[in-house]
Amino acid sequence: MQAEVLSVGTELLLGEITDTNAQYISRRLRDAGVDVYRRVTIGDNPARLTACFREALGRADIVIATGGLGPTADDLTAKCLAEAMGRELVFNQEAWEMTADWFRKRGREPRQTDRKQAMIIEGGRFLPNSNGTAPGQAIFAGGKLAALLPGPPREMVPMFEDHVVPLLKESFPGLVPLTCKDLHVVGIGEGQVQEILDDLMKSANPTLAPYAGLAEVRLRIAARGHDPEESLAMVRSMEQKVRERIGDYIYGTTGDSLEGVCAGLLKKTGLTLAVAESCTGGLVCNQLTDVPGVSASLRMGTVAYSPAVKASVLGVPQEAVRLDEAVNPDTARAMAQSVRALSGAKIGLATTGFAGPGGGTENAPVGTVYIALAHADDVIIEKHQLAGARKTIKERAAQNALILLWKFLKSQAGGRSRGN
Amino acid sequence: MQAEVLSVGTELLLGEITDTNAQYISRRLRDAGVDVYRRVTIGDNPARLTACFREALGRADIVIATGGLGPTADDLTAKCLAEAMGRELVFNQEAWEMTADWFRKRGREPRQTDRKQAMIIEGGRFLPNSNGTAPGQAIFAGGKLAALLPGPPREMVPMFEDHVVPLLKESFPGLVPLTCKDLHVVGIGEGQVQEILDDLMKSANPTLAPYAGLAEVRLRIAARGHDPEESLAMVRSMEQKVRERIGDYIYGTTGDSLEGVCAGLLKKTGLTLAVAESCTGGLVCNQLTDVPGVSASLRMGTVAYSPAVKASVLGVPQEAVRLDEAVNPDTARAMAQSVRALSGAKIGLATTGFAGPGGGTENAPVGTVYIALAHADDVIIEKHQLAGARKTIKERAAQNALILLWKFLKSQAGGRSRGN
Repeated sequence: MQAEVLSVGTELLLGEITDTNAQYISRRLRDAGVDVYRRVTIGDNPARLTACFREALGRADIVIATGGLGPTADDLTAKCLAEAMGRELVFNQEAWEMTADWFRKRGREPRQTDRKQAMIIEGGRFLPNSNGTAPGQAIFAGGKLAALLPGPPREMVPMFEDHVVPLLKESFPGLVPLTCKDLHVVGIGEGQVQEILDDLMKSANPTLAPYAGLAEVRLRIAARGHDPEESLAMVRSMEQKVRERIGDYIYGTTGDSLEGVCAGLLKKTGLTLAVAESCTGGLVCNQLTDVPGVSASLRMGTVAYSPAVKASVLGVPQEAVRLDEAVNPDTARAMAQSVRALSGAKIGLATTGFAGPGGGTENAPVGTVYIALAHADDVIIEKHQLAGARKTIKERAAQNALILLWKFLKSQAGGRSRGN
Repeated sequence: MQAEVLSVGTELLLGEITDTNAQYISRRLRDAGVDVYRRVTIGDNPARLTACFREALGRADIVIATGGLGPTADDLTAKCLAEAMGRELVFNQEAWEMTADWFRKRGREPRQTDRKQAMIIEGGRFLPNSNGTAPGQAIFAGGKLAALLPGPPREMVPMFEDHVVPLLKESFPGLVPLTCKDLHVVGIGEGQVQEILDDLMKSANPTLAPYAGLAEVRLRIAARGHDPEESLAMVRSMEQKVRERIGDYIYGTTGDSLEGVCAGLLKKTGLTLAVAESCTGGLVCNQLTDVPGVSASLRMGTVAYSPAVKASVLGVPQEAVRLDEAVNPDTARAMAQSVRALSGAKIGLATTGFAGPGGGTENAPVGTVYIALAHADDVIIEKHQLAGARKTIKERAAQNALILLWKFLKSQAGGRSRGN
């Protein structure tokens, strides 16, 4: 089955907003076993939009469009698809009641102009919108499925999942879906991963593909098959093979984030954390505090940006602060130890380095970053030489700090008991 | 002049990567006076890609494609455009030398397969790539301009700016460019901005349009005209009118960020800053430290996430810490005052609130955020009730903290002398 995805809206063509819908729909269609061959972005112009629908319906089995379903005069998507299909729009009482309900629940009365949103293509069905006023719609005719979804992602995504995915299965029972699983890999480069897994990456079903991220490789396992249990077994078997070779570097699977996994391990081990940041400027704490409930484990963070504060607040020795403007292993160690002592946390994590573009010394050029983790028994110190613009160096340094934290927490979760 | 933008790459259709190139090119073409009527995303399939080029060249005056210029077998863009135009690819010695140079500067020898990147369409010219190996290329024929650019944004953007923009002007001297200026507005809602500027927003040339952001409105002034000086005068006159009405709320213009403006004002006033964050979890510091050179003004940050640390490290009174789990004006005040005292900075900025999804009390439900700014003479305290998911509340709270800082710094920069 071949699909085309249409993004409708003049504001898209003006470059004023980013189109995340097309990417989302592409990925989910691929998962459903549909090949997306083309995506088109088109403005709110009736002639061009109608032509686009005609072309897409001529080429593809499935056409999914987002945007232009609202009540205003430039919302033309339903009208244009109707015209491309040679059908009429008819008022749908049930769709209208849902829209009217949405308004009334918010203490407002629907206007007469809102009725336009309940005009559904003859022979089609409306798709309920749980997060907005505009219903979607879908029509299966002549062996082809066309679906119209609202533009705002928070309305589009649930409608796609709740209504379009089932419709795809119903309309095309022959589709062979993909069963996918992501493995998140850190602490080993993409080149090395490819070398170690080279033979597995040649597998045709399930496939194994690497995607490089920021100091991270995402491995995607995808099995294609009619029987979901069989596919799942294929994915699991591939995952097993990958884990046998590089299991120590895998921090999580689909949907996991490194900070989320660290927060989970903190909770599991009962360990508490304090962070002292210099070059990362608060980014490590910011990422950790994106995780709900981390407040139970994260005692405090300090951004000791100025050398004077490193000395006065964190008690880093003067000699260390003076050496290479405080970018050295002794400063990292002292920061980690003293934020641990200051907060009473079990783990102290620290970063110091030069993010650039200014600064840097002969011993520690821009991109030099020291990361330290202090725990009850010892301090672990790592040196990294990172490349990129200021923000990239900050991001890579923060990621490396979280990797160090993750490796330590994993070692604790494996062996020792709670309350260490 | 009408343009179409093509994004080439199977990984795009699989939804594995986000296409930021199409949006960038759309906006810059609009600025150049070109109307983008359609954008197409297509995979690395020679038949479909060639058909796409044929269709686009049939409809538009300008066709710009990104991606598929590399050395591997699935990089087919140049070959397909050549076929669509009925032309040959010819080896370009100058392009090849640039590519070979790029390798040699990095201590590598170009391979024989890299020569493919120097194959340029007959009659066209190559576009130097300052950030990668693959040259771009452009051909102006039959009154139409086609340009091929590399896929990685860091290679595409400079090539577009340095080579495609001049080529557009050269090929289409009749283009009427837009002269644009953004005004960044905070501390006043989009609805109010629209009401106050209603008459100005009806202007046809220059136009004035609002774009809502996160606790911020971007106002875009755009004048269309052949004479750049005249256009600039129109933009300035509109800017003047806007400033007369809401000048107090405008923190910057095109390219400015709130944190960058705050860092500039800190430098200008000679004031130093310390930040104590609870619900924003390090985000305020992280944003400020994205600005190069801020280390001279930012003494320290503290993420006092746990109530115990608020009391022990920051000396927030026990009663305040206990009341509504430390989400109250007294805690915000004490945090701002004590981080100021602890660091020796002139300004203390603090946030405390509930970002959710858990937590919250009767007096302070999720979304309640207190922001405080302590300076030599006084403490300013604001209460905000913010909506959204955890990350959104963090972002809105951090933005509001920066807005408070900006308002204070502006008042200081206006009246008082350095060293206050």
